[in-house]
Amino acid sequence: MTQFSRIGLIGRLNNDRAKYTVRRLIQFLQTCEAIVVVEQQTAMLCEVDTEYPGIDVVDMAELGRSCDLAIVVGGDGSLLSGARDLVEYNVPILGINRGRLGFLTDIVPEDIEQKISEVLTGKYVTEERFMLDMQVERAGQTLCGGDALNDVVLHPGEFIRMLEFELYVDGHFVTSQRSDGMIVSTPTGSTAYALSGGGPIMHPKLDAIGLIPMNPHTLSSRPMVVPGDSVIDILVGEGNSAIPQVTCDGQTHDPVRGGDRVVISKKPQKLLLIHPLNHNFYERCRSKLGWGGHLLEKS
Amino acid sequence: MTQFSRIGLIGRLNNDRAKYTVRRLIQFLQTCEAIVVVEQQTAMLCEVDTEYPGIDVVDMAELGRSCDLAIVVGGDGSLLSGARDLVEYNVPILGINRGRLGFLTDIVPEDIEQKISEVLTGKYVTEERFMLDMQVERAGQTLCGGDALNDVVLHPGEFIRMLEFELYVDGHFVTSQRSDGMIVSTPTGSTAYALSGGGPIMHPKLDAIGLIPMNPHTLSSRPMVVPGDSVIDILVGEGNSAIPQVTCDGQTHDPVRGGDRVVISKKPQKLLLIHPLNHNFYERCRSKLGWGGHLLEKS
Amino acid sequence: MTQFSRIGLIGRLNNDRAKYTVRRLIQFLQTCEAIVVVEQQTAMLCEVDTEYPGIDVVDMAELGRSCDLAIVVGGDGSLLSGARDLVEYNVPILGINRGRLGFLTDIVPEDIEQKISEVLTGKYVTEERFMLDMQVERAGQTLCGGDALNDVVLHPGEFIRMLEFELYVDGHFVTSQRSDGMIVSTPTGSTAYALSGGGPIMHPKLDAIGLIPMNPHTLSSRPMVVPGDSVIDILVGEGNSAIPQVTCDGQTHDPVRGGDRVVISKKPQKLLLIHPLNHNFYERCRSKLGWGGHLLEKS
Amino acid sequence: MTQFSRIGLIGRLNNDRAKYTVRRLIQFLQTCEAIVVVEQQTAMLCEVDTEYPGIDVVDMAELGRSCDLAIVVGGDGSLLSGARDLVEYNVPILGINRGRLGFLTDIVPEDIEQKISEVLTGKYVTEERFMLDMQVERAGQTLCGGDALNDVVLHPGEFIRMLEFELYVDGHFVTSQRSDGMIVSTPTGSTAYALSGGGPIMHPKLDAIGLIPMNPHTLSSRPMVVPGDSVIDILVGEGNSAIPQVTCDGQTHDPVRGGDRVVISKKPQKLLLIHPLNHNFYERCRSKLGWGGHLLEKS
Repeated sequence: MTQFSRIGLIGRLNNDRAKYTVRRLIQFLQTCEAIVVVEQQTAMLCEVDTEYPGIDVVDMAELGRSCDLAIVVGGDGSLLSGARDLVEYNVPILGINRGRLGFLTDIVPEDIEQKISEVLTGKYVTEERFMLDMQVERAGQTLCGGDALNDVVLHPGEFIRMLEFELYVDGHFVTSQRSDGMIVSTPTGSTAYALSGGGPIMHPKLDAIGLIPMNPHTLSSRPMVVPGDSVIDILVGEGNSAIPQVTCDGQTHDPVRGGDRVVISKKPQKLLLIHPLNHNFYERCRSKLGWGGHLLEKS
Repeated sequence: MTQFSRIGLIGRLNNDRAKYTVRRLIQFLQTCEAIVVVEQQTAMLCEVDTEYPGIDVVDMAELGRSCDLAIVVGGDGSLLSGARDLVEYNVPILGINRGRLGFLTDIVPEDIEQKISEVLTGKYVTEERFMLDMQVERAGQTLCGGDALNDVVLHPGEFIRMLEFELYVDGHFVTSQRSDGMIVSTPTGSTAYALSGGGPIMHPKLDAIGLIPMNPHTLSSRPMVVPGDSVIDILVGEGNSAIPQVTCDGQTHDPVRGGDRVVISKKPQKLLLIHPLNHNFYERCRSKLGWGGHLLEKS
Repeated sequence: MTQFSRIGLIGRLNNDRAKYTVRRLIQFLQTCEAIVVVEQQTAMLCEVDTEYPGIDVVDMAELGRSCDLAIVVGGDGSLLSGARDLVEYNVPILGINRGRLGFLTDIVPEDIEQKISEVLTGKYVTEERFMLDMQVERAGQTLCGGDALNDVVLHPGEFIRMLEFELYVDGHFVTSQRSDGMIVSTPTGSTAYALSGGGPIMHPKLDAIGLIPMNPHTLSSRPMVVPGDSVIDILVGEGNSAIPQVTCDGQTHDPVRGGDRVVISKKPQKLLLIHPLNHNFYERCRSKLGWGGHLLEKS
Repeated sequence: MTQFSRIGLIGRLNNDRAKYTVRRLIQFLQTCEAIVVVEQQTAMLCEVDTEYPGIDVVDMAELGRSCDLAIVVGGDGSLLSGARDLVEYNVPILGINRGRLGFLTDIVPEDIEQKISEVLTGKYVTEERFMLDMQVERAGQTLCGGDALNDVVLHPGEFIRMLEFELYVDGHFVTSQRSDGMIVSTPTGSTAYALSGGGPIMHPKLDAIGLIPMNPHTLSSRPMVVPGDSVIDILVGEGNSAIPQVTCDGQTHDPVRGGDRVVISKKPQKLLLIHPLNHNFYERCRSKLGWGGHLLEKS
């Protein structure tokens, strides 16, 4: 008997390992008396209708509405994309990495049967992660927008172009900057691009937003961490030579121009991540970042 | 008429400018119908009994117990020391810098009369800052301890000695490290030593603790920010060649040895800081760190 | 009487201040008995033929061949461009900034008459700067190339795309990297983009090349400085999703693809920079980077 | 037949592994028809006279004067100490690490017989490394001094004390600084303490000196690389609260006081390092710093 009655499968990576994992999951879940539903594009890639004729194939919205668990097969990138698609449906997400463990996808293919069994029988932890809501405003109107689990990045679009902008937090002017751009990161994103950019590692439970300047011209610029309920407002400067862009999770791109405001704040809906019981953020840091183990082990 | 009926003065810097400022304050406060009380050591330095014969001179504990406002004259260092002394008495503190503005002491001598008048008539903001409680435990017993408004630093005592230790957060092992030490910083301290050490700037309202490795041997070590209610536990390694020390706010020093645990957590009592109405954290960052003003101003 | 008999003027910035400075220079140089020659595009922008009918207008190559001094009016960017154009003609260059001093253009408009007079009468220092030669090789053939006084940057072309490549120095494999790219910088470029990217400041006389990884995924990547006669060879990886580019001095752009080699080495021809006698690299660092003056001045 | 007729052995680490390695070396070298000489302190630690009664035991000076090769058993620290002792005798040094490879000691115990055989028959490379000469001057007199292969560090002596000083290079004022100190590093030292302090990696062949500020208060301070023949002159400030020290290679300590000048320049004598033929600096960086291997190996 399982805690989750209807489980949606998503795995849109076009490679053999990922497809094999999706098929293996379908078979295993069917033995668990769960109703299995496959996302449309996943179904096509994995040729699901040939092998599992009666299976339910649905689009992402339907999957979100009808399932009480979504399993994403892929890397951290696949989970980011799934999170943005599903956050409004309040369905918890479990990530299975087709290769080595990620920060977000913490089951490896070898452990699928064991770990999924445990999850289905209630042996799991649920973790809430907040996401960012980004809106581009022009002349007081909202032009476009997006969600991000990791980060919103304002950048010049082309490399080797400087970006100039003004930063406001909660209506207070913070600073102007000439740089390669600005990373606005959740704690979840702090171990991704923001980390390469020199930002601090933020614990996933932290209610905070990181503001990481990218290669700033002003040498005294530093990464900043502000409360999670702050409203970040970046006013794009008029003097930019290329067409700046706003990028969510490195995956969506919206062009902006001088005078536009990029307004970023915490999204009211939370992402629910399902982890196996042994999940540990610090252990993940040690293994993925190469940090030292216990002192005695080393000598 | 003033909102504060009994005001304590602290100014223990042994220089003419600070002494002059203390005396000027006494005179001004007396014209405001406030009862003025002077801390013992301050009174000696400023020879207060000669010039103001009837004035109340008290020790720090009495000042904390009896006053409803404490004014500290000095730099950020004086305020750190005052904060540690007074935090348990729940008396709000106002800082007056004898030179240029600090991050904590935001009235300059030229503005004393005007700004203090405003504060006394209720034109001020109160800001709560949390402090750190540090305890050294040896064989399960608490050996010594201290408070910090800025930071607790574990370091090898002597320079050019490596320190090795294990870091735990909330009972979870995080990593071992060989480095020049570790800075455990409040948001308040994030613009002080932690900033020189490569830590992020944390907004004062953030409920978070920064963990900043100092010159770590492991190149993948990075500053980390954890939730404010975390319990930080540093296990001192056995292989240290010098006598490591724990330092609070750069002002108190306790020796530790291999096997000791330095346990750091948020102090239940909060520090109450009084600011003039125009106080703005980001403005202070711009002026003290040299950040850029509005774009139009620059061209 | 002047040490330089034929002086070429270059000032291709399309703004009033720059044009005014060019015209003022023509007039002044004519009073100095120097033969003045104006670069074609400069002449058009400044409408030189109307105001100075008999003046010699030449293209850049002719200017390089025929002059024994070239004066560039503009910012550091104008001088970079002039340097690449003129390096093969061995003509020394003097930079006049239309605004505040740059690292390369060290005469300001107010001082033109005085400083130029001094230079023309032999009161100057000549400084040799080396430049980089960049060649893109595909299947053993040279595809394209360029020169750089500041830096050669390999980058993904579009932002938020990772670049993967292998780095070789003098035929030895150094490392592979996944990052936002790599800055290969001269000492001259070390105070420009390379500095924003975290590279060290290199003294202009240093015979060295800086290799600065941009936001590397591997946290242990560090800026590297290798001898000036090293041959840098970057093998572009096959797995890049965008079209990587090589950029010289932030001004020229060549697309590359997987398997291409970007080969960078010191150019045999040196750039000759003319400075007024009081030129001092460290003074420039202090004023442009905001470094501290003498200790006594500060207290 | 060997290229080296008289070989000195140094191994002053008081641990079993190091002692065993020294003894094994003596036996092996005796079979190679080399005359083996053991340094005094090494001989005591390893009880050499009991086991090898006729062997020559000499002090370090005699070893330097009489040998044409010195073999140091230990870590990089042992080699640093040996280098400072022997540099004036011009005897080449070969390092054997008792554990894993270091940057300087590039033979491991398992390979002793094979690698030493090769070296003795001429299969080796000689590498010249420059060292730093440090002198403390007070009122125009030289007070004390020392040599360093890695680095000279000026620091406050005690931790959590600020150091203030002025930096001059070749007689030019560079900047004043308030910081935890300054690391002056050779290319050899650039992979040691200077690297933890944020300095660039410098190729061993580079003729350059690194100046690395330690946790500077001025956020625009950056590591600097100057030509190898520069004279570095650090004027200790008058306002330091602790007793600053100068440390060579982390091993020798000289106190200084306000007004003293610490003068650092390249030592005329060079250290000669002997490496096995396969020695490769970049390979060492990859293995010790965890840099990425070839791209194909990773996928």
